[in-house]
Amino acid sequence: MRLCRFDDDRLGLIEGDYVRDVSAALEALPAPRWPLPPGDPLIANFERVRPAIAAAAARAPQRPLAAVRLKSPVANPNKLIGAPINYNDHVEESRKDQGIAHGREIKTIGDWGLFLKANSALVGPSEGVALRFIDRRNDHEAELAVIIGTGGSNIAERDAFAHIFGYAIGLDMTVRGTELPSFRKSIDSYAVLGPWLVTKDEIADPDALDFALWVNGELRQKSNTRHLVYGVARLIAYASSFYTLHPGDVIYTGTPAGVGPVKPGDVMRIEMQGIGAMEVAVRAA
Amino acid sequence: MRLCRFDDDRLGLIEGDYVRDVSAALEALPAPRWPLPPGDPLIANFERVRPAIAAAAARAPQRPLAAVRLKSPVANPNKLIGAPINYNDHVEESRKDQGIAHGREIKTIGDWGLFLKANSALVGPSEGVALRFIDRRNDHEAELAVIIGTGGSNIAERDAFAHIFGYAIGLDMTVRGTELPSFRKSIDSYAVLGPWLVTKDEIADPDALDFALWVNGELRQKSNTRHLVYGVARLIAYASSFYTLHPGDVIYTGTPAGVGPVKPGDVMRIEMQGIGAMEVAVRAA
Repeated sequence: MRLCRFDDDRLGLIEGDYVRDVSAALEALPAPRWPLPPGDPLIANFERVRPAIAAAAARAPQRPLAAVRLKSPVANPNKLIGAPINYNDHVEESRKDQGIAHGREIKTIGDWGLFLKANSALVGPSEGVALRFIDRRNDHEAELAVIIGTGGSNIAERDAFAHIFGYAIGLDMTVRGTELPSFRKSIDSYAVLGPWLVTKDEIADPDALDFALWVNGELRQKSNTRHLVYGVARLIAYASSFYTLHPGDVIYTGTPAGVGPVKPGDVMRIEMQGIGAMEVAVRAA
Repeated sequence: MRLCRFDDDRLGLIEGDYVRDVSAALEALPAPRWPLPPGDPLIANFERVRPAIAAAAARAPQRPLAAVRLKSPVANPNKLIGAPINYNDHVEESRKDQGIAHGREIKTIGDWGLFLKANSALVGPSEGVALRFIDRRNDHEAELAVIIGTGGSNIAERDAFAHIFGYAIGLDMTVRGTELPSFRKSIDSYAVLGPWLVTKDEIADPDALDFALWVNGELRQKSNTRHLVYGVARLIAYASSFYTLHPGDVIYTGTPAGVGPVKPGDVMRIEMQGIGAMEVAVRAA
């Protein structure tokens, strides 16, 4: 199943190049007040919503996907997690390029751990990326994003796949500089997620997905998730060894070599096997 | 006004050493489904709730504060922000102590920027701190926590106070090591906030508050927020120059010298002028 959030926060079921508005299914969600339970309410309560989606889809006309604006398919994550230096070719390029390293010694993901991106940075592809500091280097980082379905803590690697809800394409935008990653990577719009989410049943092996990123038609990044240093299951186990994961948490799994700067007016395109493609426009904030 | 969250998520109005259960006021909150608006719903809608708190307090009996369990007064932050190396005496101790620095060059907050703590790490004083890695050094960091009321982006320093909702005591627990701060400081229970929140009208100048931390009765940290390198207004301006602040966002403003390890069985006590005191017990996870 492929689900999107579109236009003024409609829930969409995707069928090929078309979308059906299944927002009526959201009526199945509870309406808590305060304190809200942690995590995205749609994903946390998906088993209640799933039959209502099928019912709503049967009544909704198809609309061309090209005619809607796509927002982040996850609306209310508890946290956005990033994996630094998780492809060896990106480790190598980071060591060679002081425009990336800024004097830091580039070690290993086991040494650095994971980082967080601010929830306020999350956008969908149609919202685009707004650069706040256009005089600094602002890089694209294309990656697989894993969306947690069932929360947990101290999850064993062998149990990790049971905790996955689905996948999306992640774009971990980054302003280069001396600041800590959780600051540099948290500018509004610097966490792109899209174009929709694909439930996990559609992807047999998330550690074997081709993907690529182009800027204005020029190929910049091309890899396969089999080159992840910490694969998907290990990332889930590692993250949950420090903190509890909640439904809707997103793990940006890391980016391969080829990261590079974008400027206002550029258009990034990312394709990922099993998920689809998205275009993201860059502008000045 | 002093507000707490207690027991099974009751809203409490504090009067001296007593609390009145004003949870009935929560009925004034909207009940959105998906997508939830960003930020803590109580703080975002406080003007609706405020008159209902007064009405509920008139009907509620006083209970001794000592008889209730205090949770984090902010329940649903969009993000928890931390300020690294924001007291010069802590910068100095960090440079001298490889148990803190772990080979990193300790620079300035302007160089490092801010960091994030996972929302899943947030607890109140009665929940205590649970150490996951007891073989590593786990330090207390006592600090002033600023709670955002009105969101905003690119907030000017001169306008910053208008965006504050209130204050609490923050305890930025930290496992030392090579990992990025947003990982090491995000273990479940490593973001303590309490004992309650004090609305901003009660504190004339947040940049002039005495505070101290004791472990098992032994004084470890003692300072005044006037020694902040980036004061409260500058931190708000700085944070919002990167990302949008939302109601209920918490800024842990940084810690002075005296950070040090705790172990299971220890009890930390923090007092802060204008806010109060809280005790936090340490256990193994």
